[in-house]
Amino acid sequence: MNKVAVGIDIGGTNTFIGFLDENGKVLSKSHLITQEYRLISDFISALSFNIKDQIKLLGQVNIEGIGIGAPNGNILNGCIENAPNIPWKGRLPLVKLFSSFFPDLPVFLTNDANAAALGEMSFGKVKGLKDFVVVTLGTGVGSGFVVNGEIMYGHDGLAGELGHTIIEENGRLCGCGRKGCMETYTSATGFLKTTKEYLKSFAGKSLLKQIPVTDLMAEDVSIAAENQDELALSIFDFTAKKLAFSLANLIAITSPKEIILYGGLANAGDHLIRPTLSYLDDYTLNVFKGKVKINTSTLNNNHAAILGASALVWQELKKKN
Amino acid sequence: MNKVAVGIDIGGTNTFIGFLDENGKVLSKSHLITQEYRLISDFISALSFNIKDQIKLLGQVNIEGIGIGAPNGNILNGCIENAPNIPWKGRLPLVKLFSSFFPDLPVFLTNDANAAALGEMSFGKVKGLKDFVVVTLGTGVGSGFVVNGEIMYGHDGLAGELGHTIIEENGRLCGCGRKGCMETYTSATGFLKTTKEYLKSFAGKSLLKQIPVTDLMAEDVSIAAENQDELALSIFDFTAKKLAFSLANLIAITSPKEIILYGGLANAGDHLIRPTLSYLDDYTLNVFKGKVKINTSTLNNNHAAILGASALVWQELKKKN
Repeated sequence: MNKVAVGIDIGGTNTFIGFLDENGKVLSKSHLITQEYRLISDFISALSFNIKDQIKLLGQVNIEGIGIGAPNGNILNGCIENAPNIPWKGRLPLVKLFSSFFPDLPVFLTNDANAAALGEMSFGKVKGLKDFVVVTLGTGVGSGFVVNGEIMYGHDGLAGELGHTIIEENGRLCGCGRKGCMETYTSATGFLKTTKEYLKSFAGKSLLKQIPVTDLMAEDVSIAAENQDELALSIFDFTAKKLAFSLANLIAITSPKEIILYGGLANAGDHLIRPTLSYLDDYTLNVFKGKVKINTSTLNNNHAAILGASALVWQELKKKN
Repeated sequence: MNKVAVGIDIGGTNTFIGFLDENGKVLSKSHLITQEYRLISDFISALSFNIKDQIKLLGQVNIEGIGIGAPNGNILNGCIENAPNIPWKGRLPLVKLFSSFFPDLPVFLTNDANAAALGEMSFGKVKGLKDFVVVTLGTGVGSGFVVNGEIMYGHDGLAGELGHTIIEENGRLCGCGRKGCMETYTSATGFLKTTKEYLKSFAGKSLLKQIPVTDLMAEDVSIAAENQDELALSIFDFTAKKLAFSLANLIAITSPKEIILYGGLANAGDHLIRPTLSYLDDYTLNVFKGKVKINTSTLNNNHAAILGASALVWQELKKKN
């Protein structure tokens, strides 16, 4: 009988639930609107009933465990702690809450960037690579480091806060209260901030000036760059320089074989990667120059997050055996 | 019969050779003057005869392997590559050269910072810790990261170049050709550079002004700081600020439980650590504040390097079994 893992991706807007086999084949998938649940207990309850319904529909499968990727999810204590973009505040004992609905199944939780790294390691093009990094460029910047073939969780489960390395003293104010954090420049949010700043001071013509500022999205800048729009290109150039500076320092510390960009801003693809590689060559220590590949994820965008969450189950069960 | 490892520490000035048991007990120790050997082949030959002589003197022991810590030593290819402070240039196939003298023994090589981390992990106060970092503040700055209980070598064996993370764009010129590398400020060499710069611009009285500039050593600044010398304290303050900035970024990425300072400048102890902790509190992301210990090594200073090199043998043999 097919061995199956439940992979759950909890996001600020949607929560996706998938049933996947060991090869990453999606047997069933559904979703909930995260914001609809005022209480975490209501959310967990709805999620659990959704899972039980899907189990009934699937019939004969062996569920081996439940894996959850969520912002600020901590594998060591099974809690989500102070995640900025989900409706429930404080410390949420997710694994404990889930286990009351599924007492016979192991439940694992980690943050979304680590889940993404596990997905890449298990099902992506980097399968078999023992040292690589996934950098998520979304609302914030997250990162999942694979070191010696395992996720680097750090002593407290909180490693991978690349987005909160300071890359410019007294730089942009960050949501964390400090200044100059990497994510204030290279997250999708930071990128839009740059776009608005550049729009204000740019006197020339630009496709971006035809869009109401409040409607601007990262994608608009990509489309403008596609058309060689000078302003759009300079916004990517600025962002790439900041990203490259940060990645060069990351490379000096962990020496990964590959860096995979993921999430909102990564969809800009070559518009972001080409100038990043060029600046990376300036910033990188000689011994690492030209060695590190920078790519976007090759996983199916629609399933990437649940693939990662399901991979967490296989990875953790392998450790226990 | 006692199981024994040979631990070799190759430095720019001296090379130390020790025979140590699994508990880190030193059974025998000797040394060579590194600079006396014009050719690497002469050096390896002298080192090998030294080892063979010691084996004869020790009598009944089971030598399990040879571990070498050396600047730029790479565990993956067994070579020293372009190390700045040893007499021989280019790529030196150390393990291969050694193996011709000891065909029946496994020979392992890594860089001195990784060896230091292995020494701490096996014989130091952090024994049992799975996530910590050793930062060596010597002629340059090296670092050895322990992640999930193993050294992080990176995909090419060259991880841990913390000294070459850029902490100030367009900052001090580094030996690597780039600007603003961490080691230009926080190595013993960088510290002396700061001392000389501060001496030039400081109009007040200072104990440091009584020492000829060319004779100044980091230790002199420590002694002056001990006497509450204003200039000396401000030199430590500047250095601590740079160190803390760098360590805060390191913590955000790898989340270690402890950071152990090692080598020349670490001997300044509290003069360096106290202001570093204070700046670290400013620079560190909230979730990590107050969690990470900063200490100096607790290993016996005279044996630390050969302890680390011998630990490499036990660590690698354990992996193979």
